[in-house]
Formats: sequence, C-alpha cells, structure tokens
Amino acid sequence: METGRDMAEIQGVEMVEVGPRDGLQNETAIVSTANKAELVRRAIGYGARRIEVTSFVNPKKVPQLADAEELAAMLPERSDVTYIGLVLNERGAKRALATGRIDELGAVCVTSDSFGIRNQGQSSSESLAAAIEIVALAKAAGRSGQITIATAFGCPFEGEIAVARVVEMAKRAADADPREIALADTIGVGVPSQVSEMIGRVREAVGGLPVRVHFHNTRGSGLANVWAAVAEGAATVDASLGGLGGCPFAPGAAGNVPTEDVVYMLERGGVATGLALPRIVEAASWLTGVMGRPLPAMVSKAPAFPG
Amino acid sequence: METGRDMAEIQGVEMVEVGPRDGLQNETAIVSTANKAELVRRAIGYGARRIEVTSFVNPKKVPQLADAEELAAMLPERSDVTYIGLVLNERGAKRALATGRIDELGAVCVTSDSFGIRNQGQSSSESLAAAIEIVALAKAAGRSGQITIATAFGCPFEGEIAVARVVEMAKRAADADPREIALADTIGVGVPSQVSEMIGRVREAVGGLPVRVHFHNTRGSGLANVWAAVAEGAATVDASLGGLGGCPFAPGAAGNVPTEDVVYMLERGGVATGLALPRIVEAASWLTGVMGRPLPAMVSKAPAFPG
Repeated sequence: METGRDMAEIQGVEMVEVGPRDGLQNETAIVSTANKAELVRRAIGYGARRIEVTSFVNPKKVPQLADAEELAAMLPERSDVTYIGLVLNERGAKRALATGRIDELGAVCVTSDSFGIRNQGQSSSESLAAAIEIVALAKAAGRSGQITIATAFGCPFEGEIAVARVVEMAKRAADADPREIALADTIGVGVPSQVSEMIGRVREAVGGLPVRVHFHNTRGSGLANVWAAVAEGAATVDASLGGLGGCPFAPGAAGNVPTEDVVYMLERGGVATGLALPRIVEAASWLTGVMGRPLPAMVSKAPAFPG
Repeated sequence: METGRDMAEIQGVEMVEVGPRDGLQNETAIVSTANKAELVRRAIGYGARRIEVTSFVNPKKVPQLADAEELAAMLPERSDVTYIGLVLNERGAKRALATGRIDELGAVCVTSDSFGIRNQGQSSSESLAAAIEIVALAKAAGRSGQITIATAFGCPFEGEIAVARVVEMAKRAADADPREIALADTIGVGVPSQVSEMIGRVREAVGGLPVRVHFHNTRGSGLANVWAAVAEGAATVDASLGGLGGCPFAPGAAGNVPTEDVVYMLERGGVATGLALPRIVEAASWLTGVMGRPLPAMVSKAPAFPG
C-alpha cells in the first residue's frame, strides 16, 4: 500500500466545480435560478471548464434543483466549457438531453443496496445497470457520460465497503466506455491510505480510463484524501466553491472539499489546476453573501500567502 | 521529493495535546484555572501522555495563561504523564522549573527576524540561542527540553522560508541534544509536498533525534500535512482538542489541527495513536460547552464510523 509517488511527476489535474449541484442540493433555502447562473458564470470566470450545474431528478426529492431546465436555458454558451447534469435513470437522462444545453450526463451507482434504495430507489446492481444505460443514452445523443461510484469509501448503513466490491463495479462500469470513472466518498469517511489503495486498484482495473475523485470533508480528511488521490494518479478532482454542501442543520452532512482550499494546496504543491485562486476567493465572498452565512472553506478567510 | 513511503511500515505515532496552551492562548474570554485543569484531566482520560499545559511568558502579552503557576499546582500527579511548559527565555524557564510540576520545557525559535521580534522580542539567532539555553537549564534541573522551529513552512512577514534555513537551524538545535526537534507551521501555510521534503531533510540533519510536527489548519491542509509528516517518519504530532486555537475574531488565525480529526484519520489508516476516539469526542463536547461556541473539529460533529 504505497501512500504516494513522486508528486513532481504530476503536472496538473483537472478540477470539476460541483457547487451548483452538490453544493446546493441540500440547502433548504431555495437559491434563485439567477444566482445559480451567476455561480456558473463566476466559476467560468475563475477558470472552471467542467461544471456540474444541476441534477435532473425528482423535484419533490430535491426541491433546490427543481429549476434544472430553467437553469440550463440560462447557461452561458461556451464551447470550451462542459456542463454536467447529474441523472439517475432514463427519465432524467432524457430531460437533461432535451434541454440541448447539457454536455455530459453524470450517472451515479452505489456500493450497497441499503444506501441505494434510500438515496435513489435502486439496489446496487440496479444503479450500475442504470448508469451503464445513461452512458449509452448520452453517447447516442452525441454527448459524453461518466459514472460515479458513490459510497466507495464507506456506507452509512453497511459501514466498511470492500475494495474488491468497488473494483468489480468499476470494471463493469468501464465496459460501458464512459468518459471516466469517479470514486465518491459520499459521507466523508475515507482516509489517505484507503484512498491510495482504492485509486491504485481501480486504475489498474479500468485500463486507461481516467479516474475522478469526489470527497466530502465530513471528518476533516478531505484535503488529505485529495492529495493522496492526486499522488496516486487521479486525473480529476471535484470541489465546491466555499466548501458548500451537506446541510447546515444535519450533523455529519458536511460539505464538499472547498475549491479554494484544494487549489491552494495543489498549486502551492506544484500541481497546476487551471483555476485562479484570487478569483475563486472573490467568488466565495459573493457566495457567502448569497447564502447568508460563513462557508466552510478556510483559504477564503485567510490572508493570501505568500503576500 | 517523495511524498510518502509505505505507510504500513508506520506502526504508531505519539500525540501531544496542546489545547491547554496553544488552543487557549489567543482566546480573549479567560477560561478558569479549574476548567484548564479539567481539560488536562480529560486529556489524560482519553489517553494523552504528553500535554502542553501552559506557557511561562509575560502575562501582559498572553493574559489567558497568566495563571501558569496556579494551574501547575493543580495538575494531577501522574508519573506516566509528561507536562510541557512553553518558555521563551531563562526567566520563563526558571518560573516553570520553580513550580516543580513541569516535566519538560518547550522552547521556540523562529526562522525570521521580523516574526521573532514581533512574537517574542528576539531575532532568529537570539531565539535559537535562547532555546539552546533553555534545553540546558531543563537538563540541569533533571527535566527534558525540546526545541520547536516556528514559522518553518512560511512567515507572515517574509513569505517563503528556504528549506536550507530550517535545516541549518535544526542542526544547530540538535547540537543541544534536546528530546526532539519540532517543525511548526505557525500560520498554516504548508502543503504536503513541502512537509515531506522538510521532514525528510530535517530528519537527515538531526541524526537520530525524533521529529515532532505542529500544524495549524488555517488553509484547510492541516490534516494532509499531518499525513505527509507521519508518512515521512515524524514521530510525534501536536493537536488540540476540538481544533481550538487561533482567535475567532482574527481572520486567518485558525486553530491547531483537531485531536479528534487527526486520531480518526491516523487510526483508521492503521497508525496507532494511543488515544481513545470516543473519549476525545466526549471531551470535545464538554469543551464546546466551556467555550460557548462550536469548535472547528469535524469528527466531533459527525456520526461515529463505522457504526
């Protein structure tokens, strides 16, 4: 279990801004569609070129994102930006594709039946089958599709998840030839040694497919996990402006790793991200005003360094 | 610049609880001496066997710790616990030794004149000379002394600090034969690749002396830095219950890495710490009540995992 390789070999990573979707989805106070579009514009402004903008799911389950179609219509027309819409089934995929503005479908499969039924009304194997179908629908429409394996580092109901289980799911997902396979630490329980092992074994299993990672900072290890994943060859890192995410009223539902904190750590560590830190900090200040409370990110509250 | 070695080789680390000193020192509301003693008792209860209990400095500069002698007199008599008192000069060393209850003197030298003058009225070289003298005074009294190199990963006034500068100071400090050399990221600017390089080079420079690390989570990378340091062979890690530290009113003065978050990450990663996580979480709940506000640590707010 090597916990890292020579970081000097890593030239750069791609960042995906997930604030508009995963950052906002559990917020009870509804953010206006105009502010969501502004968040996307600001993310583009600080350099984001892949943005998870919304999800096309049951609006009763996720009221915050009930305006998916309206938001899609307001997205800046940018040929250099990939807009990702999260979908969980054929119905969602068709909604997303019908907008004509979503470049990429993000599908989610889960490692356990207990979480899958609660999260998306699908068993683990049903969720994988749906994800494979979603990738096929995206490709048939001339779009790209990617598959995220959620609760890859632990399940709130079943506890530890065997690495072999994740590797097996990743192999089957890779057979659908998605743009990438992502590993998500949905409940923020992962630690770096686990991340290193998981990324290493999944990369071996999926051939040349890029691996993306998605961490929550629920137990404070989110940045450590990002570092371990990048050191182990993860190509792409999800992060959320300000560390938005989770629910401020639900203990334990903490935010995504903050975009500005990840970018500070990686850039100062010599790993290019393509994002401009001062503009992220400006955007975080704006977002703090929109949300009306301090956000979890630390870099936005600290002086610039070095000066 | 290797960013890690085989973590499976690392059997365990020693934790130093620094909450009573570094955690509290910038709090403007004075915590009662009885509560400080209770904090020490609770730290012993969760397994801490080295505790930085206070500092013997000018009470006008650090009013929160003006009760150093009173607290020392209230410390539980435990032959298995090492009580550390931070001191910056001969006067402080003599005060600490005069209590008869401080087992170890913690001396602090700084990498830059500009920070040294502001922090402790000493240039960098004066601070190193004072630290060497403090170790000698401790040894002459039959106690141990250790030397911390503060602002080792960056200075708020001078920015980047050359690794060679830190290595040279560590070498000279090691000649005093302290218990250990510590590297402190006083303002929380370090990133894992920097930590790996610094620990590796300092360990080479100080012969067999153990290396301790002290990180603040000012920019979110604190836990990542702990992981990198332990992977690189740091023997001892400072942490503060609840992540207390810094000042809630001063932007950018963020807390120490939280004891519970560090212990969760290391223990789940297979590195023994000697501390009992459930008892840390209990103590953090008590400390939250004492401080009257939520503390930065994440693990204390999250459900136990696994179950």
